[in-house]
Amino acid sequence: MRALVLNNDWSFVEDYPTPAPPPGEALIRVLTAGICNTDLELARGYLHYRGVAGHEFVGVVEAAPGAEMWEGRRVVGDINAACGVCATCRAGRYTHCPHRTTLGMDGRDGAFAEYLTLPVKNLYAIPDTLPDEMAVFTEPLAAACEILEQVHVHPTDQVAVLGDGKLGLLCAQVLALSGCKLTVIGRHADKLNLLAPFGIATVLVQRGATPELAEIAGTMDIVVEATGHPDGYVTARKLLRPRGTLVLKSTYHGAMETSLSRAVVDEIRLIGSRCGPFAPALRMLERGWVNVTALIQAHYGFADILTALQCAAQPGALKVLIKM
Amino acid sequence: MRALVLNNDWSFVEDYPTPAPPPGEALIRVLTAGICNTDLELARGYLHYRGVAGHEFVGVVEAAPGAEMWEGRRVVGDINAACGVCATCRAGRYTHCPHRTTLGMDGRDGAFAEYLTLPVKNLYAIPDTLPDEMAVFTEPLAAACEILEQVHVHPTDQVAVLGDGKLGLLCAQVLALSGCKLTVIGRHADKLNLLAPFGIATVLVQRGATPELAEIAGTMDIVVEATGHPDGYVTARKLLRPRGTLVLKSTYHGAMETSLSRAVVDEIRLIGSRCGPFAPALRMLERGWVNVTALIQAHYGFADILTALQCAAQPGALKVLIKM
Repeated sequence: MRALVLNNDWSFVEDYPTPAPPPGEALIRVLTAGICNTDLELARGYLHYRGVAGHEFVGVVEAAPGAEMWEGRRVVGDINAACGVCATCRAGRYTHCPHRTTLGMDGRDGAFAEYLTLPVKNLYAIPDTLPDEMAVFTEPLAAACEILEQVHVHPTDQVAVLGDGKLGLLCAQVLALSGCKLTVIGRHADKLNLLAPFGIATVLVQRGATPELAEIAGTMDIVVEATGHPDGYVTARKLLRPRGTLVLKSTYHGAMETSLSRAVVDEIRLIGSRCGPFAPALRMLERGWVNVTALIQAHYGFADILTALQCAAQPGALKVLIKM
Repeated sequence: MRALVLNNDWSFVEDYPTPAPPPGEALIRVLTAGICNTDLELARGYLHYRGVAGHEFVGVVEAAPGAEMWEGRRVVGDINAACGVCATCRAGRYTHCPHRTTLGMDGRDGAFAEYLTLPVKNLYAIPDTLPDEMAVFTEPLAAACEILEQVHVHPTDQVAVLGDGKLGLLCAQVLALSGCKLTVIGRHADKLNLLAPFGIATVLVQRGATPELAEIAGTMDIVVEATGHPDGYVTARKLLRPRGTLVLKSTYHGAMETSLSRAVVDEIRLIGSRCGPFAPALRMLERGWVNVTALIQAHYGFADILTALQCAAQPGALKVLIKM
């Protein structure tokens, strides 16, 4: 099969071996894949991954030995393949299984290929009314929903999302559904404008001082840090009220220097937030409560995936989709 | 009145002005005061405080204009004097009032003196059965209770307390009341032994490797960091399971370097924890559920408070009390 293989650099391979599903897994033909910032980071050496990248996909189950009812179904899939039997799995924390493999990221070939395999228990059927180019957002939208799994967002809360990238815009739309008073803070007027139809307040960060930020300093009940930059933490802390909650959605390379003593004095809650639940993400997409098509930067055919990766790497690029 | 005044260094003053209670405040004659690590840090320049230090006390209300029912009563008092009218106070977060003064720490003379003043609303009457030398632990015990205010500690949780200092030993005793499976980790066998009557498991950290720590790595639902050292954070993270909660009780000088990216991947919760509620602390003391007398290192008369401070500054010293 054709596959984009990462081995220090990307290489497009025509004769990569088509995977055979091990027991309990399904063979899935990829229809559409999305490019995530993490894919770009993998190419920079993140996780030292080698193999087929890609973890956002829509596919069709071609074979599911022992679970034939899945064959022919259009699916998305949880990217964390857990062992299911260790103490962490038995406690229900599958996405943290220490023995897990992760699609296109850790020990498991991913979605930038004609076929992939995933455990059948990881699969979610896509409603017929939901087109591929929307369903492919299920995985990143689930990551946004993870915030609601972890934090009780009250309808009366004042909430800020820092960052107007793909993840920030998805987090903003999901948080807005809680009824909270939401402000999204970013550096790109065109991307912030995408939120106008949802009635979400935005602040465009200017070079130099941004007086709107000074006005809301120390008032936010919850701040979601989704900038992908270490300085996002500093801004987030400034916006947060005492006893507020800071949700960390983005990972950065390397360490940062911070004084946790201030977090003690102000009794701040810091919560790391990663992969999330697929079922509510699919419900939100099906019901049209989140606009993901506005987040599509470009479509490419699989043969042009190297160009697509370049497109996705442009500063400010939104979601780049690959049609297989 | 006699007072110990901090002005770069300590000086014992015989003729410090006796305070007059402003409206809403009570004049309190100090009976007993406790020395906290924070007092020692103030002398090292923490908070740049100048004035009378000391915030752990038992006293008698000498005058309470407009609230005469308090006069003659033996009291402890919340050290944060809030404005009561700002947005933070109206939201019920009095201990975070941006206009607050703090007894013996910030803008308000403290308990190392014959008299102090505090708002009447900050006072708590001490049950007659509770002697001064136990009631003086109300403030630090309240800080330990703050953990239970902030975190739902399940009876089935595995919990570790890092640090066997005064605060660590109080946190341990309070947490044990939840029924959780508790392990206290420290460097002083004699102090860890104080917890034996409560059936609390302990691990004595040895120079070099401590195999007991490796065994419980990654298993703790909750870790309370109460070492007062930046390396406590590193140990705490190692002990915590994915999605676990790390309670930061101790403040350190200056910044530390850490990778919050790992906290994102493991979806850790970090919670800063400071001053706590006095009422439950008094209930625990009255009912004898916490042993504080075992934590008393020494008693001194007020005239010997400079020697008492030296005693409290010895490595491993427990609570030093001052009788006025």
